[in-house]
Amino acid sequence: MGMVGGGSGAFIGYIHRLAARLDGQIELVCGAFSRDPKNCRQTGQSLGIDPARCYDDYEAMMAGEAALPPAQRMDFIVIVTPNHVHFPVAKAALEAGFHVLSDKPATLNLQEARDLSDIVYKSGLSYGLTHTYLGYPLVSAARAIIADGGIGKVRKVFAEYIQGWLAVNVDNKQADWRTDPARSGASGCMGDIGTHAHNLVEYVTDKKMTHVAADLTIFVEGRRLDDDGSALFRMEDGIKGTLSASQVCVGRENSLSFRIYGETGGLEWYQEEPNTLIRTYVDRPTEIIRSAQGYLPEHIQAQYRAPAGHPEGYIEAFANVYLEFAEALRTDGGVKSGMDAALRGMAFVEALVESSNNDSAWTEIKP
Amino acid sequence: MGMVGGGSGAFIGYIHRLAARLDGQIELVCGAFSRDPKNCRQTGQSLGIDPARCYDDYEAMMAGEAALPPAQRMDFIVIVTPNHVHFPVAKAALEAGFHVLSDKPATLNLQEARDLSDIVYKSGLSYGLTHTYLGYPLVSAARAIIADGGIGKVRKVFAEYIQGWLAVNVDNKQADWRTDPARSGASGCMGDIGTHAHNLVEYVTDKKMTHVAADLTIFVEGRRLDDDGSALFRMEDGIKGTLSASQVCVGRENSLSFRIYGETGGLEWYQEEPNTLIRTYVDRPTEIIRSAQGYLPEHIQAQYRAPAGHPEGYIEAFANVYLEFAEALRTDGGVKSGMDAALRGMAFVEALVESSNNDSAWTEIKP
Amino acid sequence: MGMVGGGSGAFIGYIHRLAARLDGQIELVCGAFSRDPKNCRQTGQSLGIDPARCYDDYEAMMAGEAALPPAQRMDFIVIVTPNHVHFPVAKAALEAGFHVLSDKPATLNLQEARDLSDIVYKSGLSYGLTHTYLGYPLVSAARAIIADGGIGKVRKVFAEYIQGWLAVNVDNKQADWRTDPARSGASGCMGDIGTHAHNLVEYVTDKKMTHVAADLTIFVEGRRLDDDGSALFRMEDGIKGTLSASQVCVGRENSLSFRIYGETGGLEWYQEEPNTLIRTYVDRPTEIIRSAQGYLPEHIQAQYRAPAGHPEGYIEAFANVYLEFAEALRTDGGVKSGMDAALRGMAFVEALVESSNNDSAWTEIKP
Amino acid sequence: MGMVGGGSGAFIGYIHRLAARLDGQIELVCGAFSRDPKNCRQTGQSLGIDPARCYDDYEAMMAGEAALPPAQRMDFIVIVTPNHVHFPVAKAALEAGFHVLSDKPATLNLQEARDLSDIVYKSGLSYGLTHTYLGYPLVSAARAIIADGGIGKVRKVFAEYIQGWLAVNVDNKQADWRTDPARSGASGCMGDIGTHAHNLVEYVTDKKMTHVAADLTIFVEGRRLDDDGSALFRMEDGIKGTLSASQVCVGRENSLSFRIYGETGGLEWYQEEPNTLIRTYVDRPTEIIRSAQGYLPEHIQAQYRAPAGHPEGYIEAFANVYLEFAEALRTDGGVKSGMDAALRGMAFVEALVESSNNDSAWTEIKP
Repeated sequence: MGMVGGGSGAFIGYIHRLAARLDGQIELVCGAFSRDPKNCRQTGQSLGIDPARCYDDYEAMMAGEAALPPAQRMDFIVIVTPNHVHFPVAKAALEAGFHVLSDKPATLNLQEARDLSDIVYKSGLSYGLTHTYLGYPLVSAARAIIADGGIGKVRKVFAEYIQGWLAVNVDNKQADWRTDPARSGASGCMGDIGTHAHNLVEYVTDKKMTHVAADLTIFVEGRRLDDDGSALFRMEDGIKGTLSASQVCVGRENSLSFRIYGETGGLEWYQEEPNTLIRTYVDRPTEIIRSAQGYLPEHIQAQYRAPAGHPEGYIEAFANVYLEFAEALRTDGGVKSGMDAALRGMAFVEALVESSNNDSAWTEIKP
Repeated sequence: MGMVGGGSGAFIGYIHRLAARLDGQIELVCGAFSRDPKNCRQTGQSLGIDPARCYDDYEAMMAGEAALPPAQRMDFIVIVTPNHVHFPVAKAALEAGFHVLSDKPATLNLQEARDLSDIVYKSGLSYGLTHTYLGYPLVSAARAIIADGGIGKVRKVFAEYIQGWLAVNVDNKQADWRTDPARSGASGCMGDIGTHAHNLVEYVTDKKMTHVAADLTIFVEGRRLDDDGSALFRMEDGIKGTLSASQVCVGRENSLSFRIYGETGGLEWYQEEPNTLIRTYVDRPTEIIRSAQGYLPEHIQAQYRAPAGHPEGYIEAFANVYLEFAEALRTDGGVKSGMDAALRGMAFVEALVESSNNDSAWTEIKP
Repeated sequence: MGMVGGGSGAFIGYIHRLAARLDGQIELVCGAFSRDPKNCRQTGQSLGIDPARCYDDYEAMMAGEAALPPAQRMDFIVIVTPNHVHFPVAKAALEAGFHVLSDKPATLNLQEARDLSDIVYKSGLSYGLTHTYLGYPLVSAARAIIADGGIGKVRKVFAEYIQGWLAVNVDNKQADWRTDPARSGASGCMGDIGTHAHNLVEYVTDKKMTHVAADLTIFVEGRRLDDDGSALFRMEDGIKGTLSASQVCVGRENSLSFRIYGETGGLEWYQEEPNTLIRTYVDRPTEIIRSAQGYLPEHIQAQYRAPAGHPEGYIEAFANVYLEFAEALRTDGGVKSGMDAALRGMAFVEALVESSNNDSAWTEIKP
Repeated sequence: MGMVGGGSGAFIGYIHRLAARLDGQIELVCGAFSRDPKNCRQTGQSLGIDPARCYDDYEAMMAGEAALPPAQRMDFIVIVTPNHVHFPVAKAALEAGFHVLSDKPATLNLQEARDLSDIVYKSGLSYGLTHTYLGYPLVSAARAIIADGGIGKVRKVFAEYIQGWLAVNVDNKQADWRTDPARSGASGCMGDIGTHAHNLVEYVTDKKMTHVAADLTIFVEGRRLDDDGSALFRMEDGIKGTLSASQVCVGRENSLSFRIYGETGGLEWYQEEPNTLIRTYVDRPTEIIRSAQGYLPEHIQAQYRAPAGHPEGYIEAFANVYLEFAEALRTDGGVKSGMDAALRGMAFVEALVESSNNDSAWTEIKP
């Protein structure tokens, strides 16, 4: 694996490296960690990377790696830069023949995502998107229960991702690019975290969201992108719901959750207590489904590293995303789910922004 | 106190009697408990009411009581009939000179509410509306914290009231009238329980909701009124939020909650755990405020009957509503807050229905 | 009903009156509320009691009531005095022919309890003890599940009742008598609240505790009775467990709980969230059993006043104790369970004190 | 790092490798993974270990590594065998000049632990013991609060570690050796998990437990070691408490917890929700202290890998133990805390067993 971005001071690159390393299946062999050559070299050095493979920029990295014998060169790149760089790096990597695993959002806007999709599908290469929260096994368990008819036809969905860290003006690198339209895209909060909620809902229900009626807000004076938003939504098969994302909910940390109710049952999951899935019934007590328990389907149990009662968290979920990508490369080299999620996510954000600018009118999501 | 409605088989009349009786300040002295004279008499008998004061209908009750010497006649009536009867009974009582405490909604529609308001204000009598959940002391504590600037200027509000009991077709008296437009009004779920969430939000923030963009749904085939709905809303002073009410969320019981976030803090409260109020801060640990604790304001402590750790519930909250009404009658005989809440609640429901019928367009709430 | 004790300033008398009044089946008709005649009369007046039936002391009350025609006199007395007065009042009442409902502990020591038992059984009258927490319906539900074999043969029990209000020296009427050996008995904390935990465990398991090895402590300097204690215990049929009671656990309110594990399942209940009962299984998800739900046995459902989701609390539990006593008087006039619980409770306390004084040696509980 | 034990089928060796690998500071370079040479070689191969450094037994490993040039040989060994092998392997490693990180318990009995202590202190080498739960940052936060006087002088402690997995007879490798006295030591449940609770209490309070009065039990027929036990205990400075460990509490997973109450506050922590620490006060609301928050001391914040709201779990805690050991080797090569904890843990277990065999008499813990 080679990494673009993730120099010192970058939070998410560090997390990616932990996640990639955890299971001992993926080795970081090269990187273009920063546009600052000194930062890049120092980061590489601290990670034990061959200095010759610490590249000044991603173009050099693609060229350098492609020039190596196949057995030595990296298998894929991971993109952990600010959003506006995701597309050009992915494009360059695919054109140089490397699989891509990208931080979300895939691109800065929907048009770029469509362009990227063309490139991916033509390339025959794999493209993964790190929707980390899908790596929690109980999220997959929820999907399996619904697929199996366990709550009947889905009717109503509540999805949320609320944080409080931008309730006041924050002056740091993380906040900086996230609130800059040129680097973050057309939406701030919704693009950054609302998309996770959208992705989670579509994944768990296995249904597509079709329309939104949204109200995006900038609460903190001087900010240029939404720091809060709520939307009514409609999905295939008559499902309805609400989705809220906010970064001004003081005291909330990373409160991503879904609550999904069908004709005969419901499922509720909260990212901050990821080892618990709540299942409701019409005429029986609510059940507390717990991680790694023997009553889970075997393919869910297999996603855990320790027995029940040993909490696994965000890094393990992230590592599961890496494992799945690595497994796909080993088996068929044909991961496309990331690209589809990328397109749907960008279309979701554009629909939200359009609706909010249009007095919250119902707006179709058109990937 | 005299009661209209609440014969055998009626759930809410029974609860009203418990609540009125608990503190020993209010005596039920007469009633028109049912349009079925036998039910009426039997109910009265089982409650130890003088048979002469078990009236066949509310008209007879007003006339009969008015004919008694002032010291003997009832002080006020409580209305616990299905919704469509609330208005005529209240009108008759006020015209006969009796104060009124009414179950919500006050009337079947906004026009009736406006008419009622005229009658109330002209009468000089008191009119109370049993928004039971305002009787929980920690709801008042939340209002006091916000009024005191404890969370700064309010920005975002999440309000919900979700239940699951109508997820399937229910064949009983309670479900029957609640899903009948003629007896329940223009909205089912929103009128029945969404109004509680609306009322709670306005009470706690002490701000008015001004606009809604709503999507109401009938999920269960054959039903004639919404059994689910969500709305985006806007309040005075730039507050935004979402409000959902549903009766098809399988497994949910009476999940009324608010989460309110301001510039410097937040408050979260859940009706099913009413003895806990969660308070968040920008840079301090979240606090678990508990009922009856010595650190609460004295006027909040005074609303509890037992020391901290002895959970008080729905009936105590309901009794607090009665105590407040009784206290108002004793002191100035001028309770009008119920009328204002009634108008606002009816206007809220009409705006929701209009918005939902108009493709969820933003619709003003006009009491 | 007549009340002995419960004058102004007395917490528990007030709660008894709420509980007795709630369901409209029991009327307070007379009292000896205080040894201070003025307090007694004022209390009676505020409660609307006939001044002729506000007695100066309990002896006068027994005589006065016995002199009334049977149809007018009280049916039973409730004793809500400090502990040391429980026995003489109960004795006087029984000798005067009145049923007795007594606050716990029944007496100041085991010898008095044995004497009282003789009197009760000879009298043919009813004797109830207000172990309030047995009034929570889910406590009965737990007992029913165990009786039905729902968790298999019971093995291990954890019981606790921890509070924090005596962590510092408290100077009030409540704390005063509770920490005075002459008025409270041989034990402070264990006698006051540990006995509730003991009673709960025996009730729910329907097994008797036979031996304890205890360590009682006075943590707050100057106090004369234990304010904390823990014990290992053994029950019939090889059940083992621990029981702790403390009044110095800062921040704890009224944390009474049991956790009971059998061969095939477990049950956990916490008084501060009394509407939830947790049920565990060997190979299935844990269940959240909730109050008033349709899946509960009918006799449990019948103990609730409102539908599921309307939390019922301490006062409702207390009222259930009154209802059960009243029902027993109506049907057979032969409640003896209170007397048996009284004997067992006093024997439990004496065994604890003896064990603690004897280097925590295993000590038999001998009622 | 070299590993002894941890061949295929061994749970804990796998976890150790994840934890050691996570932060990229420790490399597994050799191992004697199994007494079965084939298992050993296959494990090594799957981990990418040089076959020449997959040793047939630990003696060969010590010899082989010692024969390598210092720059190539392993720095330390980690011992992940069943309990009875811990001591001989540690002894051999120390005598061959290698630092040791050992799974707990350090030895099979107290005498071996004393012998080991002599060897460690003479060797000048480091000896660490993987009391994993100390790796949770909020455990250290609790210790810091108490050290800082944050809850006043400690009075009462509740410690528990309860599981349910041995409630029925379990037939697998994990259960097998844990219930065999020859391989597990004098105690089953208490030795396996009770020691974690003991260690946690001494670490957080920074006080030593001095006496226990214990009751150990074998609930499942045919088992040869305790599968349950409870103890009263006393600590320095008048602290009292209870400690329970059980493997027959059906439905409990890994419920390790402490609740510690001092003169002015309390702290409560539950391993299954490790990112929350509850702090109580005499006259203020309870606080929910959360992982990675900015209000934590900097040395606690530094133990987290991701921002607040990204739950970290058991593997991260385990990795923190490795990081601390590695840091100690880098700085002074003189970790002895593991040895002290080892001695104290073995003395605790021996005191429990002696007390339980002696009618639960108070028994001194003599390391």
